[in-house]
Amino acid sequence: METNSSGGGSSSGSLGSSSTMILHNAVIVTMDKESRVFRNGGVFVVQDRIKAIGQSADILQQFSQMADQIIDLQSQILLPGFVNTHVHTSQQLAKGIADDVDLMTWLHDRIWPYESNMTEEDSYISTLLCGIELIHSGVTCFAEAGGQHVSEMAKAVELLGLRACLVQSTMDCGEGLPASWAVRTTDDCIQPDSSISFNFVSSSQKELYAKHHHAADGRIRIWFGIRQIMNATDRLLLETRDMAREFKTGIHMHVAEIPYENQVVMDTRKVDHGTVTFLDKIEFLQNNLLSAHTVWVNHTEIGLLSRAGVKVSHCPASAMRMLGFAPIKEMLHADICVSLGTDGAPSNNRMSIVDEMYLASLINKGREVFANGTTDPAALPAETVLRMATINGAKSVLWDNDIGSLEAGKKADMVVVDPFSWPMVPVHDRITSLVYCMRTENVVSVMCNGQWVMKNKKILLLMRGRLFQLQDKLLMNF
Amino acid sequence: METNSSGGGSSSGSLGSSSTMILHNAVIVTMDKESRVFRNGGVFVVQDRIKAIGQSADILQQFSQMADQIIDLQSQILLPGFVNTHVHTSQQLAKGIADDVDLMTWLHDRIWPYESNMTEEDSYISTLLCGIELIHSGVTCFAEAGGQHVSEMAKAVELLGLRACLVQSTMDCGEGLPASWAVRTTDDCIQPDSSISFNFVSSSQKELYAKHHHAADGRIRIWFGIRQIMNATDRLLLETRDMAREFKTGIHMHVAEIPYENQVVMDTRKVDHGTVTFLDKIEFLQNNLLSAHTVWVNHTEIGLLSRAGVKVSHCPASAMRMLGFAPIKEMLHADICVSLGTDGAPSNNRMSIVDEMYLASLINKGREVFANGTTDPAALPAETVLRMATINGAKSVLWDNDIGSLEAGKKADMVVVDPFSWPMVPVHDRITSLVYCMRTENVVSVMCNGQWVMKNKKILLLMRGRLFQLQDKLLMNF
Repeated sequence: METNSSGGGSSSGSLGSSSTMILHNAVIVTMDKESRVFRNGGVFVVQDRIKAIGQSADILQQFSQMADQIIDLQSQILLPGFVNTHVHTSQQLAKGIADDVDLMTWLHDRIWPYESNMTEEDSYISTLLCGIELIHSGVTCFAEAGGQHVSEMAKAVELLGLRACLVQSTMDCGEGLPASWAVRTTDDCIQPDSSISFNFVSSSQKELYAKHHHAADGRIRIWFGIRQIMNATDRLLLETRDMAREFKTGIHMHVAEIPYENQVVMDTRKVDHGTVTFLDKIEFLQNNLLSAHTVWVNHTEIGLLSRAGVKVSHCPASAMRMLGFAPIKEMLHADICVSLGTDGAPSNNRMSIVDEMYLASLINKGREVFANGTTDPAALPAETVLRMATINGAKSVLWDNDIGSLEAGKKADMVVVDPFSWPMVPVHDRITSLVYCMRTENVVSVMCNGQWVMKNKKILLLMRGRLFQLQDKLLMNF
Repeated sequence: METNSSGGGSSSGSLGSSSTMILHNAVIVTMDKESRVFRNGGVFVVQDRIKAIGQSADILQQFSQMADQIIDLQSQILLPGFVNTHVHTSQQLAKGIADDVDLMTWLHDRIWPYESNMTEEDSYISTLLCGIELIHSGVTCFAEAGGQHVSEMAKAVELLGLRACLVQSTMDCGEGLPASWAVRTTDDCIQPDSSISFNFVSSSQKELYAKHHHAADGRIRIWFGIRQIMNATDRLLLETRDMAREFKTGIHMHVAEIPYENQVVMDTRKVDHGTVTFLDKIEFLQNNLLSAHTVWVNHTEIGLLSRAGVKVSHCPASAMRMLGFAPIKEMLHADICVSLGTDGAPSNNRMSIVDEMYLASLINKGREVFANGTTDPAALPAETVLRMATINGAKSVLWDNDIGSLEAGKKADMVVVDPFSWPMVPVHDRITSLVYCMRTENVVSVMCNGQWVMKNKKILLLMRGRLFQLQDKLLMNF
């Protein structure tokens, strides 16, 4: 229920892009340091930030006169926007092209041919479609895992109104790659000689940084990428590390995905375990590294990751299907910041962080069988999982000063969940109900940077400073 | 898009309860023996049965003159209704009361106190609420795992228009049970002395059979129950076996759920492995036994189950959380009929067979890590999982002559799936998309026994021979 207050009107009030707004009469799950929950709470939003949060009555009393718009959330749940810390947006169009095939077929015969033949327009459409599905599951920020055409991703992110850390897929060595991928040198990946032009991709990572970092009202950040250890020379690793330090940004890398990877590292790089041991040896592990998957790590390596402050993105569906059971409980016990990712569509195929929360809890309760003989229904409790999808996600993308919890001063990245529909009835415990009962369909509205990106299940696109509602089946014809 | 044909009108045409009906312009996934898929198919339904199935053009040409109603499904997907082969409908109101606690707390402090204090009205409301959630996920038939008040369950099933095999929770021994459960003798369970009245439950299983078997236009069947081996004397097991044979019905029993159960059986019943070995020894295993969970079975026991034709209900979410990894791939290789169940709400908590399909595939691909060192992305492929949820479900509830696939002569139990919304875009392979991409929200309409039980997401209740549309939030206030 919305009312324009006496305080003023808005040129597009019906879409809710007011510059000051109160949301009240909500159950607010803040995910702040004290894990505060307001049973009847309100927030006052000014432009892109939360100005105040508290009891509804207090918020209404203090700020009603200043609010362009006052929205009664009718006891729905208000949460921080979810952060998806590992997703290949370029792979969205490939959803379903590689189901039920072995790993080598998946990679060599399906994904590589698909990805290496993508045009810039394909990337744009793919990111757009992926973003729409992510928004439906309450995602307001994502970390791209690495694709070919970062400028096109940025264009889609700008239109969708999302927040994102974008990364170019970066490789300077490796066997069996598609022809168009097999020609880049280390210099090309970092900063090419400007006299040479490439017919497949024209931007180095430094150029992309210069072009897009802090674009889209600050919603886009450019990170540096390492596809994976078997496609990276030591020089690329070290220069990427130094460059990320210099530019004060993050590094996104696939780490310890399969036993074969560790074996190759042991054989070629002369360490006694795997990727993590090697990355420690060359002093690559640091607190701006987002280590995706990280399945095949031993106890020592968990200690190395923890000490260096490395962040881990756990992708439960993809792990079950392709990789294995990551020691998530052990990582959390070692105080590693573990967050959640969907991975790309051909690895999952559901692109919903809501489903990943449900999976993360179930799979890690089940995994205890193999360590202790029985499952542990108390492992990875609901609040831990909700933390992984929110504040841990924000920390993983190095953005927790602005997002990941609902607090005065942070960005207004928020999700409205309707708990009054069948999947969530009856609610005995709001937190467990959010993780175990909520389905993607319970997410009704999503705000990023103070703008609605989905309202009452309708996607809103930001074009030339104005919001347009996307018709449900607009993109269905390709 | 619906039209009443020239052939005649219907008193409740808008709700689609016509006595003859054509559904056409659908992608029909039949799940029949030849796994036929019609890209543009149609079915002709007369009363409660499919009279004909084929190409749309042929169906329209042959039967349009006879049809009260012709519905254009506009390229949506038509599937057999899903069969949920293990669900505690009485536990629906307990969704969320036992999250993140260890097994003993779950059972002794949460579930037993809840279940043993249920009134008849509680059971009715719980089954109603459970049924509504099941229908949303496309379930048209379920096998109740055992509750206290079967007559109230039957009342709810009749109202919902579903098909069900109902079972009373049956125990004649065991330690630590709630007081009201600890007093029944073996005779009470089977057929009590009519001179004695019970204050907690008045019906024996034979009485329930006489009262409800084939009720609700044949949609209800009464099965016999064994809660689990630790609550059953040998005499109860053997008399139940014989009684089920005499009454030509099924037995639903929890089997080999946790290692402790096998250990107790080894200690007290003098066999060298667990429940299945013991049940074989007393000749209890037969093809009308629906064995729920069946997680802790060895290679020999898989052979025993296979030879006896026992059916297994795999409940992936519940298994992950509470029990462990059942050897489903091995059971399927041994030609055991394995189907899918949600289990009860406090074990899951999502009551969606659509989610169980996704989980079944992922978990069983992942489980291969522990056998072979790597996941097997090709294990339990999509078509196998879809079979588990449809025709294998029908076989498991001994009803496959009537349901489980879309074929002329079978009952009209059908699900309409909308593949044109975001979760399923783009569709590269219809079968894998149904298992890996489809979310519960894609199920738009459900028919059971020739009657719509959900149409365009609205639940329809059958009262006094007429259909009424349930308001979305009617039951929200308890």
